[in-house]
Amino acid sequence: MSTLKGAAIIGQSGGPTSVINASAYGCIKTALENENITAVYGALNGILGVLHDNLIDMSKEDPAELALMRTTPSSALGSCRYKLKSAADDDTDYKRILEIFKKYNIRYFFYNGGNDSMDTCNKISKFMLENGYECRVMGIPKTIDNDLDLTDHCPGYGSAAKYIATSLMEIYHDARVYDTGMITVVEIMGRNAGWLTAAAALASYKGNGPDLIYLPEVDFDMDAFVARVQEIYNANKKCIIAVSEGIRDKDGKYISEYGSDMAKSVDGFGHAQLGGLAPYLANVLKAKTGAKVRGIELSLLQRCAAHCASLTDINESFAAGKGAVDNATAGITDKMVGFARTVGTDGKYVAEIKLFDLTAVANTEKKIPAEWILPNGAGLTQEFVDYALPLIQGETDLPKEDSLPRFVKLKKVKV
Amino acid sequence: MSTLKGAAIIGQSGGPTSVINASAYGCIKTALENENITAVYGALNGILGVLHDNLIDMSKEDPAELALMRTTPSSALGSCRYKLKSAADDDTDYKRILEIFKKYNIRYFFYNGGNDSMDTCNKISKFMLENGYECRVMGIPKTIDNDLDLTDHCPGYGSAAKYIATSLMEIYHDARVYDTGMITVVEIMGRNAGWLTAAAALASYKGNGPDLIYLPEVDFDMDAFVARVQEIYNANKKCIIAVSEGIRDKDGKYISEYGSDMAKSVDGFGHAQLGGLAPYLANVLKAKTGAKVRGIELSLLQRCAAHCASLTDINESFAAGKGAVDNATAGITDKMVGFARTVGTDGKYVAEIKLFDLTAVANTEKKIPAEWILPNGAGLTQEFVDYALPLIQGETDLPKEDSLPRFVKLKKVKV
Repeated sequence: MSTLKGAAIIGQSGGPTSVINASAYGCIKTALENENITAVYGALNGILGVLHDNLIDMSKEDPAELALMRTTPSSALGSCRYKLKSAADDDTDYKRILEIFKKYNIRYFFYNGGNDSMDTCNKISKFMLENGYECRVMGIPKTIDNDLDLTDHCPGYGSAAKYIATSLMEIYHDARVYDTGMITVVEIMGRNAGWLTAAAALASYKGNGPDLIYLPEVDFDMDAFVARVQEIYNANKKCIIAVSEGIRDKDGKYISEYGSDMAKSVDGFGHAQLGGLAPYLANVLKAKTGAKVRGIELSLLQRCAAHCASLTDINESFAAGKGAVDNATAGITDKMVGFARTVGTDGKYVAEIKLFDLTAVANTEKKIPAEWILPNGAGLTQEFVDYALPLIQGETDLPKEDSLPRFVKLKKVKV
Repeated sequence: MSTLKGAAIIGQSGGPTSVINASAYGCIKTALENENITAVYGALNGILGVLHDNLIDMSKEDPAELALMRTTPSSALGSCRYKLKSAADDDTDYKRILEIFKKYNIRYFFYNGGNDSMDTCNKISKFMLENGYECRVMGIPKTIDNDLDLTDHCPGYGSAAKYIATSLMEIYHDARVYDTGMITVVEIMGRNAGWLTAAAALASYKGNGPDLIYLPEVDFDMDAFVARVQEIYNANKKCIIAVSEGIRDKDGKYISEYGSDMAKSVDGFGHAQLGGLAPYLANVLKAKTGAKVRGIELSLLQRCAAHCASLTDINESFAAGKGAVDNATAGITDKMVGFARTVGTDGKYVAEIKLFDLTAVANTEKKIPAEWILPNGAGLTQEFVDYALPLIQGETDLPKEDSLPRFVKLKKVKV
């Protein structure tokens, strides 16, 4: 084991999730306990915190309060969507990062985020290697989208999937309460990969879910869609459809853009927000079927509903953060921590920590395998259910105060 | 005690809630156990089930399965929005109801619903009294809107309030994760009374809630609204606003109608669904402030999110259903079961069953007291928090299967 003594920085970036703080906490707690890590700093708003020398000292936080990060949604250290240029084109940012690393003797850099964040992490890792500055760099994944390649699944997905499946089961009961007809369209996040929308299939598997599920992996045909909805509606006066925000027609145009086009013909205020996909499809279905139609957008809640998080996801997220520190202090660098799925001696699902080259995962995008999508393109197979079900197991142990969530309040003591 | 032997009907009507089935279950279970009640029938889709002779025999359900009604959202017996005409104008429906009551020797009628349902219940009660048919009629309230008069609060409100406060706390964390500016508008149900939207104040009370809360009880002034948002946004780059779907301008016009007017200028499909209040206000704020603005509609979830129900609400809902049967079999009729708030010997909140005349509650609408609204019209006082907080206490014990809700599946055996 190669010993490297020095300080550590952890930063978070990209869209928040219910469990990204569980990962950060796994990393921070483990780093604070490691004898080779001399200080643990949080970079506020991701890499911007490094660039702006805006760091906080994690050792100054009360340990019991810090532990609440485990069940607090969103990014407690703040996030950013800052993309580093290629160092070959412009190395200004990299020089600044190196300057900060030297200033604080940073020898460990942990970056907690999705596809773009792994790109940032990878670029910093390569720059440090090329410039002979010894620093162990590890990516800690999070993304509700579950679209990072190589790893079996991503921290964040299980909790979002659990919220989506649970909510759809509840909507199922609500949407069929009257004796009158009703069509319900539920819009779910996921621009290019359909993992989140596919989670609706877990509700259908329980017999309380949507009749039809549309993913961005399959070209969307409006005529076929309307005909299929009409058929189900005619048969039982109810139809529930789960649809990904990212569905596109055969020419690659987002269906949501048709809604925006419509909204743009409205004069006056900025229009982009008027034309969501769910209201657009609801309007199409209403016009074509004459039925009562309701459009629902699950919106932000699907990525921040910590009260409905998966305990498996929380624990795995923590393990990913811990794994990053354990491996980095053991001499490993330039990797992302992910999972391999195995089967325990009891025949049950086990997720083992597995390391992947940052180069291999940066900017990747994993889609749903074609063979997990039903031949009609509007549902998922049992293979998907078998894949996703273990990820949503267990209930969060989120502490409550007055029966409302008690989320972390960091002191954020500047370094 | 006056003994009356005969069968009972229970029906549910109006919009569903997370706990209306807890009330129905309290009623059904107690009725099945009562020696004077010879049979317990469920009317499918409320009063329509009586009119169409569409009844199910509750004794044919497996007791363990039936018990799952306690934690299943929506109306397990089905609902309706059927309004009975005045018997003086047209007594056709009443004669039919009497015919069915005689056919099955119905001597107990329990109706589980909101304002309109109490009107139905009241009319049936009066018709039976006037026509000398001995039948004990009891209303069992439910409404997320909390707008029934006389009772301290309504079953259904606590769970909806808990979901709204919890979700707003989560949105609070999500919406301030970036270093860039962000305005978030959250639209909450409640057409005339602001109780649901006011629940957002519980999140603010916890320091994780909206900056501004707009209720239908206060005339909405767009200029003052924009100015206030701008001020908060300028000060800290974030502003979260909770707004009732029912806000109106000083002339009584719904603000959401301005959105619909805008949407109506779009040609093509039916437009009503395009112009929600949240996207409309988001567009106004975006145009006026230049900030990034997101509109979120909590939609159906606020009334059906059983996974986030209040245990207090579940238990009180059950008690209301049980109280209806206990009082009816004890000889009381023509009442709605409600609650009076008292203080226990431990100084804590206690809700006691209290009966109210159906005539007095039918078609009433209770609004938020003016003195509970902040002088600026954009928030709630501590009195409101003290009122609402006890209602959301305790977590649901919703049974799970594969970590997803296990909701009731009734056999619905026709009589």
